Amino acid sequence: MTTIVAAVLGAGVIALVFAWFKAQSVARAEVGTERMAEIAGYIREGAMAFLAAEYRVLAVFVVAVAVMLAGGYWARGTSLIALSFVVGATCSGLAGFFGMRVATLANVRTTAAARNSLNEGLNVAFAGGSVMGMCVVGLGIIGLSSLLLLYTGMYGWGVEDVTETVLTLLSGFSLGASSIALFARVGGGIYTKAADVGADLVGKVEAGLPEDDPRNPAAIADCVGDNVGDVAGMGADLFESYVGAIIGAMILGVPFAANRLGITDGSEQVLYVVLPLVLAALGIIVSIGCTFLVRTSEGGNPQKALNMGEFGSVAIMIPVAWVAIALTTGNAYTDPDTLRILGAMVLGLVGGVVIALATEHYTATGTKPVNEIAAASLTGEATTVIAGLAVGMRSTAIPVCTIALALIGAHYLSGLYGIAMAGLGMLCTVGIQLAVDAYGPIADNAGGIAEMSDLPPEVRERTDLLDAVGNTTAAIGKGFAIGSAALTALALFSAFRTQANLETLNLLDPIVMAGVFIGGMVPFVFSAMAMKAVGDAAGEMIEEVRRQFREIPGLLEGTAPAEYARCVEISTRASIRRMMAPGILAVSVPVVMGFVSKELLGGVLAGVTVTGVLMALFMSNAGGAWDNAKKTIEQGAHGGKGTDAHRAAVVGDTVGDPFKDTAGPALNILIKLMAVVAVVIAPLIR
Amino acid sequence: MTTIVAAVLGAGVIALVFAWFKAQSVARAEVGTERMAEIAGYIREGAMAFLAAEYRVLAVFVVAVAVMLAGGYWARGTSLIALSFVVGATCSGLAGFFGMRVATLANVRTTAAARNSLNEGLNVAFAGGSVMGMCVVGLGIIGLSSLLLLYTGMYGWGVEDVTETVLTLLSGFSLGASSIALFARVGGGIYTKAADVGADLVGKVEAGLPEDDPRNPAAIADCVGDNVGDVAGMGADLFESYVGAIIGAMILGVPFAANRLGITDGSEQVLYVVLPLVLAALGIIVSIGCTFLVRTSEGGNPQKALNMGEFGSVAIMIPVAWVAIALTTGNAYTDPDTLRILGAMVLGLVGGVVIALATEHYTATGTKPVNEIAAASLTGEATTVIAGLAVGMRSTAIPVCTIALALIGAHYLSGLYGIAMAGLGMLCTVGIQLAVDAYGPIADNAGGIAEMSDLPPEVRERTDLLDAVGNTTAAIGKGFAIGSAALTALALFSAFRTQANLETLNLLDPIVMAGVFIGGMVPFVFSAMAMKAVGDAAGEMIEEVRRQFREIPGLLEGTAPAEYARCVEISTRASIRRMMAPGILAVSVPVVMGFVSKELLGGVLAGVTVTGVLMALFMSNAGGAWDNAKKTIEQGAHGGKGTDAHRAAVVGDTVGDPFKDTAGPALNILIKLMAVVAVVIAPLIR
Repeated sequence: MTTIVAAVLGAGVIALVFAWFKAQSVARAEVGTERMAEIAGYIREGAMAFLAAEYRVLAVFVVAVAVMLAGGYWARGTSLIALSFVVGATCSGLAGFFGMRVATLANVRTTAAARNSLNEGLNVAFAGGSVMGMCVVGLGIIGLSSLLLLYTGMYGWGVEDVTETVLTLLSGFSLGASSIALFARVGGGIYTKAADVGADLVGKVEAGLPEDDPRNPAAIADCVGDNVGDVAGMGADLFESYVGAIIGAMILGVPFAANRLGITDGSEQVLYVVLPLVLAALGIIVSIGCTFLVRTSEGGNPQKALNMGEFGSVAIMIPVAWVAIALTTGNAYTDPDTLRILGAMVLGLVGGVVIALATEHYTATGTKPVNEIAAASLTGEATTVIAGLAVGMRSTAIPVCTIALALIGAHYLSGLYGIAMAGLGMLCTVGIQLAVDAYGPIADNAGGIAEMSDLPPEVRERTDLLDAVGNTTAAIGKGFAIGSAALTALALFSAFRTQANLETLNLLDPIVMAGVFIGGMVPFVFSAMAMKAVGDAAGEMIEEVRRQFREIPGLLEGTAPAEYARCVEISTRASIRRMMAPGILAVSVPVVMGFVSKELLGGVLAGVTVTGVLMALFMSNAGGAWDNAKKTIEQGAHGGKGTDAHRAAVVGDTVGDPFKDTAGPALNILIKLMAVVAVVIAPLIR
Repeated sequence: MTTIVAAVLGAGVIALVFAWFKAQSVARAEVGTERMAEIAGYIREGAMAFLAAEYRVLAVFVVAVAVMLAGGYWARGTSLIALSFVVGATCSGLAGFFGMRVATLANVRTTAAARNSLNEGLNVAFAGGSVMGMCVVGLGIIGLSSLLLLYTGMYGWGVEDVTETVLTLLSGFSLGASSIALFARVGGGIYTKAADVGADLVGKVEAGLPEDDPRNPAAIADCVGDNVGDVAGMGADLFESYVGAIIGAMILGVPFAANRLGITDGSEQVLYVVLPLVLAALGIIVSIGCTFLVRTSEGGNPQKALNMGEFGSVAIMIPVAWVAIALTTGNAYTDPDTLRILGAMVLGLVGGVVIALATEHYTATGTKPVNEIAAASLTGEATTVIAGLAVGMRSTAIPVCTIALALIGAHYLSGLYGIAMAGLGMLCTVGIQLAVDAYGPIADNAGGIAEMSDLPPEVRERTDLLDAVGNTTAAIGKGFAIGSAALTALALFSAFRTQANLETLNLLDPIVMAGVFIGGMVPFVFSAMAMKAVGDAAGEMIEEVRRQFREIPGLLEGTAPAEYARCVEISTRASIRRMMAPGILAVSVPVVMGFVSKELLGGVLAGVTVTGVLMALFMSNAGGAWDNAKKTIEQGAHGGKGTDAHRAAVVGDTVGDPFKDTAGPALNILIKLMAVVAVVIAPLIR
């Protein structure tokens, strides 16, 4: 057993080594002109300053929670869960740090490479994204497997020890990852949207400057925002998804083996605990292999290259998983148990693809719902907003039915373990998925740098093309993110039930129903907090940009430089200050409810999962649809730019910004974080 | 037992007789000038035309469902449930018809009376509202008690017969009431908002006409909309709430008596079935008595008069209920069982007041949240919309926690019966509550008639004052509506469990959880349909009003009359056509899910109740807050009318219109309708 885990650890090390080589190749690439280096320096500085400020605050939070955990678990004989928590938080922080460091190197180098050709630009941007992807999976696997080796070294591999002690201690790792992720998503989301709204509403609309114009005081803050929101925020987000899915499945392994498969031998039962780790480790190897599929000949289509990497990894992962399940559990390849576990994983993958297609149907340019919103902008702002809200609400139907079917199907195949496996199936190859996702903001930044450095227009055209490619591929990532969040949250919910010795959770019991009500409310209040934070921070930014235009003579004429640092500082300060309340809400609700009654907490988890998924779909898709309705008009529909219809579409897009980039994605984390908190406190309340 | 029910029937007859006298007094009041009579004639004609068109379509629906019910129940030996359904639908329709008839008489007579004094205006408007209120409770009680007499006459009062047959047959009455209510609310909501948006966006904003100007082609349709949406829609809504709360409690009576109180004598158990009817009948008497409290001396405050009636009825109802519980059950006044049932009722009343206060905090002029939205309008439409959405989401917290506490508390006191009693507590005195609620649109219409008839400005001032008073008092009604909807839905959910022989509904069972997901999604999709219907209908109206301004020479100068009838026709046609799909969604989902599995249906009901309540709170409160933020600016804040801030606030208000007047209130009905459908099909799927 120890050998298997050591091999898993080895895969994590390989990921980091690979990331290091990729980072070197990025760092060696050409930087371009002096002006480009200067702009890139500002962005880098702003991004790192934000990260430093954020981590300072989070360090206090981590220490405080670690002390509480150590205290709470003291009576149970071991406080090592606090160690897991700190390691999880640290790994999450490191993944964000490494990813952002290389992303802020890669952005300007992508611009420089795009001066030569589209393909060179793609290579640099994708290399930057790969570093992020491999850091996330590498640190996740290394952290988990080394803690597992440590704890099993102390307590042994006996089935009682593993379920009662080792897995409980390990759940602290997931708690660390999830709490940092929530803060990173919320903080980054506030940052990027405050800067974005400030840059757009004052710079573009009021002052009439083009996108990414160097005279816009919020332009640098806007580019920094892409990094802290989309790179660091997303990295922490997927780190916690990955870790949560693995741990959820591990905890459900022994009950599955014992109750469902009827295995009585403890050492065989434990194999099902290790299996999720093995699958994740193999996913890393598959991901690394598939990065080599992302290449295009001159004149080729970069979209195809990215799709090749993403779909290729999924296609290869299925037979690899088949082999791994059979070898790890010692069953034959055609044994029904092998096929059932594999079937649950495949079900998850299919579900993820269906959700992704539905997301695309409701949000992509040229689809019926997006065209409806664009048409509604002809009758003004109000009808645009109403149409977008209606599209967002309607878009929940297919994904929710898909999740419900995947849930029933996976459970039919392999019980609660099957649900966890369906979630894990979507996340095994997160290494390459995240590489593709992180590629997007790098290409976006590259475009901003091209604009601000006065490069020839064909460079900007190339970076725009790279950016557009990333957006389409990211839809798959979104579908997987939301589908896996729902399934992982349900797996963690089941893990809580196992850890808390909860036999049933009867909806006819008013305590449970009251919990469902309270839990259902949390995503609403959480989203309200996040949106208000963006609104307030954007208000400050608007005032500052207006002030600079008013008070700095020569700024609009381009003869005097803007005070970029002031805008960067405002975004940083506002986002750090305002990320705390929603985060603390998420952590404290399950603790308070759990100590009242574990049935109440069970109801809360069910409620938060259901409305969290619904609100996340509603908000993300409404935001995406408004965004593309605006783009539809900018491409010439209904009169194009500068018309009343365009102004109405811009209002819709601005309303959608905090929906899709702050509240929406944070809800995916929220539902898992609350479930993990429940898992961690379960032994204390049972 | 039959004597008690006959007495209950008598109370219903008293209510109708009282309504008849009140209606006569309204009809005898002075109509005013010829121009006033002409305008009122248009409104009356439009309202009645809508009702006729609506009822024609609903008749087909009622017949179709009745046939299906009769067929479905054929095998069980009696198809009388179809009769109950038809009677319930008919009573609901009659209540809407009588109420609207007298409201369209009272509006112009209120204007005429307001020419003399504020107090005379109050008297006429409140008399009109009282007719509506008494018709609703009278028809509800007469329908229920006469069907109960009929069925017990056929099957007897034996406890088995009552629970197995009579109550099942009676649940058809509730189904009829709920389905008509949903269509009336959705249809009326689409009508009123399409007319409102058309009148506002083209007439007021584009053409610069004042509110209710006779040159506005949509002005009459707007006044008609107030009647069909606020009077007929609300009447049907409260009729179904009232009936649903009574029947929910009746079904839970025997299990409560048998399992909780340990009563073994069947004839004693049945007393708890009759008790809810007795309480409702006494509520009628209390309501009638309290209408006499609504009077004010010259120079007095009409607000105080309405509050006196509303709070007075609640205060008097408590001791009356105490006596009724003791006498009906035969227990002593201080018997713990008596006090526990009374306690559950009081808990419901207290909860309703808390929710009402919270609603007021988030939506009333001058409160912090409303001022925040008004301030956000300084930075544009987008921030106004974001601020309003955030306020709406935040506003769910206190009501949901209140419902959760009331749920636990009422269950602690008297089990599931207690939950039903808490809901019934809020609705016993619905007679006078609805009188106050229906008073609002009458006063609103009176103002419109004053404007269009060129009466002196002090008349309009008086009607505005009457209108403002109604708005404040209506907040209490809203709190009770949402609180009672949640509790009644839960009571019906429990009744479904009883009728379907469902022992537990385990959230850890993936079928149940999948149901919660699917049920949770329904309010989102339903709201999307309702909002899109309003958007589309408003679009048609906008085109028509623009056409009339363009094509009718002399219209804007006031020398040629507008073609009011065309606008009325557009609203009528659009609303009738578009109310069907959301209604059919609500009725068919529980049927389909129920025939798949009763556990799935149980999960669906839980999901729809939780997100339905949350979305109803979110949408109603966001809409209310935007409305009053606009009024705050119109009263002079942030520059007042005509500024950019005012324009932004108008956009917020327009987004809020379908939120608060179409989707929000319909959700209250949706959650009960789906539960009633489940109760009705329960015997067929158990």
